[in-house]
Amino acid sequence: MEKKNRVILALDVTSRPDAMRVVKAVREHVDAIKINWPLILAAGPDIISEMSKVKAVICDLKIADIPNTNRLIVEQAMSRGASAVIAHGFTGDDSVKACVEAAKGQVFVVTEMSHPGGKQFTAPAADRLAAMAKACGARGIVAPATRPERISDLRKIIGKMEIISPGVGAQGGKASDAIRAGADYIIVGRAIYEAPDPGAAAKSLADEVRGSV
Amino acid sequence: MEKKNRVILALDVTSRPDAMRVVKAVREHVDAIKINWPLILAAGPDIISEMSKVKAVICDLKIADIPNTNRLIVEQAMSRGASAVIAHGFTGDDSVKACVEAAKGQVFVVTEMSHPGGKQFTAPAADRLAAMAKACGARGIVAPATRPERISDLRKIIGKMEIISPGVGAQGGKASDAIRAGADYIIVGRAIYEAPDPGAAAKSLADEVRGSV
Repeated sequence: MEKKNRVILALDVTSRPDAMRVVKAVREHVDAIKINWPLILAAGPDIISEMSKVKAVICDLKIADIPNTNRLIVEQAMSRGASAVIAHGFTGDDSVKACVEAAKGQVFVVTEMSHPGGKQFTAPAADRLAAMAKACGARGIVAPATRPERISDLRKIIGKMEIISPGVGAQGGKASDAIRAGADYIIVGRAIYEAPDPGAAAKSLADEVRGSV
Repeated sequence: MEKKNRVILALDVTSRPDAMRVVKAVREHVDAIKINWPLILAAGPDIISEMSKVKAVICDLKIADIPNTNRLIVEQAMSRGASAVIAHGFTGDDSVKACVEAAKGQVFVVTEMSHPGGKQFTAPAADRLAAMAKACGARGIVAPATRPERISDLRKIIGKMEIISPGVGAQGGKASDAIRAGADYIIVGRAIYEAPDPGAAAKSLADEVRGSV
């Protein structure tokens, strides 16, 4: 993906027609589309190939299995045109390395999550997970826009790796705060795809990001 | 699934014809079929429905997302005929509860994993994850046959909940050890589906289990 708008669309719809409609409306104003299992299960795995013809696709599969299974999942996603995948780090460095190898480096590792349960096990391990992501050669990490101070902390650990940051909009995070804290891209879902005019909503966010750097 | 053979087949093949061939050969000698993302991505989500017509299906999706996404994933799996799903616990109790609600209780929570990386983050948290699985109303937990002493430890935490136990065969765990330690079902993959006669291999494992209780 090209770092132009610094906005990634979280395409959390669950039908192919909805997905196509939104992606066509926003394609000029986002740098990538993040798709997750609910859409893949509802529309079938070919939705990965279909979307990747329109825009760079990040498969947010929260991959969290043993190394060999991780490798098989990543191979399937990449062979269908994904540009990158999102994997968990808590399954250990061998599992992350298997993803990094299969994706030729194009892996974002989850460090901290934005929901309340994320505080129980992942948040206390986030610094270690970020350091491990770096050691494994991942492209970047996922860190929450709802806690910009954590983006700054994690930036110190990972150096120049990329940070993609969900939680902007419906979850309360602000695009400008996340970018100023060090995020490379914000990830936005409902605030774009549930907007009356998704294209205008995406453009407005991209403008906000441009205004804050 | 009916607790008859106490063997669950881990159907880690990646093509529909292989899946059908193996399942037809072993159906009398296993109680359920566990399928994972690589097969779903390769054969499409309808493989869940197809398999569930032959035998109870456990969707081993290692679900590890925020509550709403977990719910959407589980709903998709159950609506296609899955009998149960496997979810991670490290994303916190709200994420696990979302799975339990969507699956009407039919959730197995991963506590400890058998690969080397499993020792870094999950194993140290396994006791807490098992207690959380119980508090959330899950059906059972996943615990490794390669470490039967841990099955015994986790049994003390969860009481009468079910334990399903992978790692038998290719990974070195013994069916009889896992069952004696307190596992309700062993999960076996390659030792069945790569056997020259998968049906005979499954029957032999079921006989070993019967001989050890």
